[in-house]
Amino acid sequence: MVSGYQIKRPPGLFFVYSYEKNKKCIFVILKGREMRKLKLEELGRLSVDEYKDSKKISVSIMLDNVRSLHNVGSAFRTSDAFRIEKIYLTGITGKPPHREIHKAALGATDSVDWEYYENPVEIVSKLKSQGVEIIAVEQAEGSISLKDFRRSDDKPLLLIFGNEVDGVSDDVFDMCSHCIEIPQQGTKHSFNISVSIGIVLWELCK
Amino acid sequence: MVSGYQIKRPPGLFFVYSYEKNKKCIFVILKGREMRKLKLEELGRLSVDEYKDSKKISVSIMLDNVRSLHNVGSAFRTSDAFRIEKIYLTGITGKPPHREIHKAALGATDSVDWEYYENPVEIVSKLKSQGVEIIAVEQAEGSISLKDFRRSDDKPLLLIFGNEVDGVSDDVFDMCSHCIEIPQQGTKHSFNISVSIGIVLWELCK
Repeated sequence: MVSGYQIKRPPGLFFVYSYEKNKKCIFVILKGREMRKLKLEELGRLSVDEYKDSKKISVSIMLDNVRSLHNVGSAFRTSDAFRIEKIYLTGITGKPPHREIHKAALGATDSVDWEYYENPVEIVSKLKSQGVEIIAVEQAEGSISLKDFRRSDDKPLLLIFGNEVDGVSDDVFDMCSHCIEIPQQGTKHSFNISVSIGIVLWELCK
Repeated sequence: MVSGYQIKRPPGLFFVYSYEKNKKCIFVILKGREMRKLKLEELGRLSVDEYKDSKKISVSIMLDNVRSLHNVGSAFRTSDAFRIEKIYLTGITGKPPHREIHKAALGATDSVDWEYYENPVEIVSKLKSQGVEIIAVEQAEGSISLKDFRRSDDKPLLLIFGNEVDGVSDDVFDMCSHCIEIPQQGTKHSFNISVSIGIVLWELCK
């Protein structure tokens, strides 16, 4: 998977890469080292307006009774990167604007759509009736390993992440059609929620 | 990938699943709902002693000048879950024991091996001479997307995560043979470091 131009060269040398296509030969000449850290302005990220207009992945997440505002902020930053549909905040989960959420979200609360519902059952019922597949991310009997989970056609998904200690609340858990579990080989019982969100969204949205 | 027993049934009903193998028919009868949240003691996690004795994945990570103690703690918790070899802490990166690290690591500083070096170049040179592949996780020209990166045979890896603002320091970056980048589609320039560690370790260790 590593193509020629990724080979490191000492600075100042030229590296010639030829690519034959339709009997025309294209030469690309790169000068010096091919690995260089990018500056912020070189990343070509979207503006908030461009983001709002862009096509989203049909995945939303719900943070149900998440206590840590750092986790909420991080969820926004990660959701922005994967360009998901929406974040639902429910129960005791904090909502923007909040200084602690901003510290981790770094402005992603402006780009990612979100809604708050005091009662998670209300919004889960509504989404379910609209054909959204409701999935808990939880350690459970009968769960599917994240390694094995495959999205069924293009049905929109709602992924639910629960409280730091108690997990997804029982009434919400009972409404889920599946449960995804991130396999773990260590001593700790679970990942940090913001890390779980990153891993699950990467696997399902990449 | 979803097998029969993961279909949700109302409590109290029986569900029969038959599996024919070598002309013997095995019936498994499950009572009630098949999805149930697991209690802490049901997760069957390793003890710290069992963890120390267990076989590790030949991947280590380095946190080079990472400012946030939350990120350090979270790195320990995630590394424990993936059972990686070791964590190298360098430069200004905080080290255990520390209250703030403990809050995110929740004891994973006892299970995962770690070493501190003031000068990252010292340990990177040593590991490189031992045949370890040195890889920066960074946004760079010539980087390889995490989607495309494949480990070359079973060469041990060192994945380097840099400072929250400045990324991997230039002298360390120059010693890397490759650079992995997590593709992003949003407005923000990067992921939170603890989320990056989760995503990269999941993809390379799963």
